Amino acid sequence: MKFCSNCGAPVTLRIPPGDSLPRHVCTNCGSIHYQNPKIVVGAVPEWEERILLCRRAIEPRHGFWTLPAGFMENAETTAEGAARETLEEACARVEVGDLFTLINVPHINQVHIVYRARLLDLDFGPGEESLEVALFEEKDIPWDDIAFRTISMTLRHYFEDRRKGSFGFHTGSVPPIAEPHLP
Amino acid sequence: MKFCSNCGAPVTLRIPPGDSLPRHVCTNCGSIHYQNPKIVVGAVPEWEERILLCRRAIEPRHGFWTLPAGFMENAETTAEGAARETLEEACARVEVGDLFTLINVPHINQVHIVYRARLLDLDFGPGEESLEVALFEEKDIPWDDIAFRTISMTLRHYFEDRRKGSFGFHTGSVPPIAEPHLP
Repeated sequence: MKFCSNCGAPVTLRIPPGDSLPRHVCTNCGSIHYQNPKIVVGAVPEWEERILLCRRAIEPRHGFWTLPAGFMENAETTAEGAARETLEEACARVEVGDLFTLINVPHINQVHIVYRARLLDLDFGPGEESLEVALFEEKDIPWDDIAFRTISMTLRHYFEDRRKGSFGFHTGSVPPIAEPHLP
Repeated sequence: MKFCSNCGAPVTLRIPPGDSLPRHVCTNCGSIHYQNPKIVVGAVPEWEERILLCRRAIEPRHGFWTLPAGFMENAETTAEGAARETLEEACARVEVGDLFTLINVPHINQVHIVYRARLLDLDFGPGEESLEVALFEEKDIPWDDIAFRTISMTLRHYFEDRRKGSFGFHTGSVPPIAEPHLP
């Protein structure tokens, strides 16, 4: 951030009175521009013993597999966001179930929130950001080609819980890795 | 948002190619400025049979009681944010426990995330944003003077679960009310 989104004047980085962290503060109108973490919402769409994955048509991680997920929008709930992303990326309609994982990714200022979801029909296909969309049994999950660690963690919890016969709610966080910007 | 934070030129509201929602797009450099929900993180600090509440010294809801909570910062986890807010608002040190509630407030673009937490000592007091801080037994909770509905919901779940002898994880959302901007 270089300019004030309120008046267009340059901003400077300083700690406002009563605050403890540097913020972008406008040199003209004094507006303080806070920057906060973003939420990524997604779903594990289930159809009998299989779950739906999307192969990414965009960077980062073009060509790798992921659950349908993306940035939560204003004016929606986390569950609505999970259903919307599933529709956009997999052209699939789901009934969203319980919240399943919440995983922090502090080095890129994100929190990933994934719900279990029930596919309503088999009428799905790649959205604009997907190369292909397919249902996978556990034995066929492309573990080495999963796009993001938060998704691998969510899938591992999913199959472990399914074997136990009882789905829980799981939280965690992932540390930075050598490759930047990969959640 | 009226001006581009990247180059200072005016922005216009339009739907970018491949997108489905209007965004603030710069008329000069083409930067797209997304606006996304913010996360509020908080804690239910426990000391034996009592929990800690703060009376707000700031608007909105000056003078009303709340759990220590505030906007999550970049580069921290949700649990770290809950501990930080408890330190800032109640000058109290906690060991953060399980995630307890996640409540959507879509009409103000917020998601409220509250953890259970164990107070480490009784050395607490009002931070800059609190008028006073106190421990309450269930029978003394000032239900009519709780600042926000997400906090009332969290407190109700807390005492219900405690009576049951088992704490769960609860999700929900609150609809708009007549008074604007009150989560």
